[in-house]
Amino acid sequence: MTSFAAISAAAKRLQGHASRTPLLSSPFLDELAGRRLFVKAECLQQTGSFKFRGGWAALSALTDEQRQRGVLAYSSGNHAQGVAAAASAHNTPAVILMPQDAPAIKISNTRALGAEVVLFDRATDDRDAIGAELAKTRGLTLIKPYDEEQVVAGQGTVGLEIASQAAEEGITKANVLVCCGGGGLTAGVALALEQTAPGMQVRPCEPESFDDVARSLASGRICRNETTAGSICDAILTPSPGEITFPILARLCGSGVVVTEDDAMRAMVEAFLRLKIVLEPGGAVALAAALFHGDQLDDMAAIAVATGGNVDASIFAEALRRFG
Amino acid sequence: MTSFAAISAAAKRLQGHASRTPLLSSPFLDELAGRRLFVKAECLQQTGSFKFRGGWAALSALTDEQRQRGVLAYSSGNHAQGVAAAASAHNTPAVILMPQDAPAIKISNTRALGAEVVLFDRATDDRDAIGAELAKTRGLTLIKPYDEEQVVAGQGTVGLEIASQAAEEGITKANVLVCCGGGGLTAGVALALEQTAPGMQVRPCEPESFDDVARSLASGRICRNETTAGSICDAILTPSPGEITFPILARLCGSGVVVTEDDAMRAMVEAFLRLKIVLEPGGAVALAAALFHGDQLDDMAAIAVATGGNVDASIFAEALRRFG
Repeated sequence: MTSFAAISAAAKRLQGHASRTPLLSSPFLDELAGRRLFVKAECLQQTGSFKFRGGWAALSALTDEQRQRGVLAYSSGNHAQGVAAAASAHNTPAVILMPQDAPAIKISNTRALGAEVVLFDRATDDRDAIGAELAKTRGLTLIKPYDEEQVVAGQGTVGLEIASQAAEEGITKANVLVCCGGGGLTAGVALALEQTAPGMQVRPCEPESFDDVARSLASGRICRNETTAGSICDAILTPSPGEITFPILARLCGSGVVVTEDDAMRAMVEAFLRLKIVLEPGGAVALAAALFHGDQLDDMAAIAVATGGNVDASIFAEALRRFG
Repeated sequence: MTSFAAISAAAKRLQGHASRTPLLSSPFLDELAGRRLFVKAECLQQTGSFKFRGGWAALSALTDEQRQRGVLAYSSGNHAQGVAAAASAHNTPAVILMPQDAPAIKISNTRALGAEVVLFDRATDDRDAIGAELAKTRGLTLIKPYDEEQVVAGQGTVGLEIASQAAEEGITKANVLVCCGGGGLTAGVALALEQTAPGMQVRPCEPESFDDVARSLASGRICRNETTAGSICDAILTPSPGEITFPILARLCGSGVVVTEDDAMRAMVEAFLRLKIVLEPGGAVALAAALFHGDQLDDMAAIAVATGGNVDASIFAEALRRFG
């Protein structure tokens, strides 16, 4: 089980490598939300999302021998870039297994960050079999995106920073809204806040039709989504909360908050107008919950984690056209 | 003459009110620029631009009697919002004279921040005469946008932060590129760096056809632009460097760097893609100089001040469509 001690240890290893992202605010957003609202801008993290923290925590926890052999990750998105950048800085070979129909820019970015990209065909290839074969023949260590203790510990450093930055603003009690896929970030933040700011209440936030965490929390057991494709919130689509993360979520979090895709796009535009940050749809879900679903929150301030900003220009322009 | 002591004093008064904005970087931008490149993200400052610093420095330096009567500012936008927000926080009435073709978001934001907005026509009205009449009849104190010692001192706090943040990155020598209108920010930053990081070389950056500072520096005397309308870089269009600012620029700065409007829009898109920040065209001019005019810079790192992010959604979407 990931512990507070593991998060503190990860924070020491991340020092000087991951950015301490700012906690932003705007009187315009306070008014729209009807409460004091702060946004933890993880889109400004290295590689454009919080995933760099987990990648760094995992890479820096490997043995020298493991680092020499290399690491493997499956991802077409933020985890790929986080692991690639962290591996490169550790002089560790990284193999990222990506679908061959992934956007060319994401493939070239991952390569530019120093990783070897292995493409597979979603329709005909078995990704897990290819990965297992690569891991076996080349001795690579698999870095899973959320159900991995060091990854949860790395993401938990977001919670340490929230506690300290909120205290500087005089805030010790707040709804802490976290965009939630498999629950690595949410679990890490909840563990960190349990020790450092026990007046905070963590609330996982998800897009409509992909609310596996909200349903799992309501029922007390792991529920699955029917599909993990078909939402613009691609960064946080996962089949279900993890075996490691769910018990932490169940013990520490309040109920889930579910938002629509339009809510997420509206929140992207508010972040553009009022905070001058770029969010991807999946990274704007927690802000959308704070702005448009305040009736589901406790009567105290809100802190929304804006998890990432890796969005195609065409989708961002569409959000501006529709809601700007 | 504004002094380093005035900047240090302003920094103390701004403490806890202005944000210490982050110094961002990306390996992709380093590669494009052909050198280490850092971006001081003043778009993340209160009110979306560095102007809040000068506004706060000026308001906090007034006598109680002056604060009770109120203040007046002329501005196409960012200085207006900076003064309006600072005045509001000081319980001081603020009247802002704005050109009627200023971006809609800047006019509506200035009103929402509590200021009274008076519009004028750039082509036909005498702004100074309107302002003088208002100041006289209502006893308002004029807060000029750049040729004002306390404003230069407030903007200079950007330079103090650059020196300290660059040192944390191991950088003591760099081209410091500053988007330059009347020279308040550029002069303040140059004064701050003269004392705190003398290995830095400040370079004012301007849009094509509005290169009054570059020409003034080249000729050694104040040159004027033929017009101050007709560029998307509205935030930094001024008739000429100021009486207070020009001698500082002439003593401390390297030659000016001039970029095209397309350069500025391309830099906005790079900031969107690689740093996840929102820049307005005038706020992207220094980044454009770093990315696309490196041949004019000294052979050392570059630090570009991204001065503001108050851009209409339609202009941002156009930049994404053309260069995204």
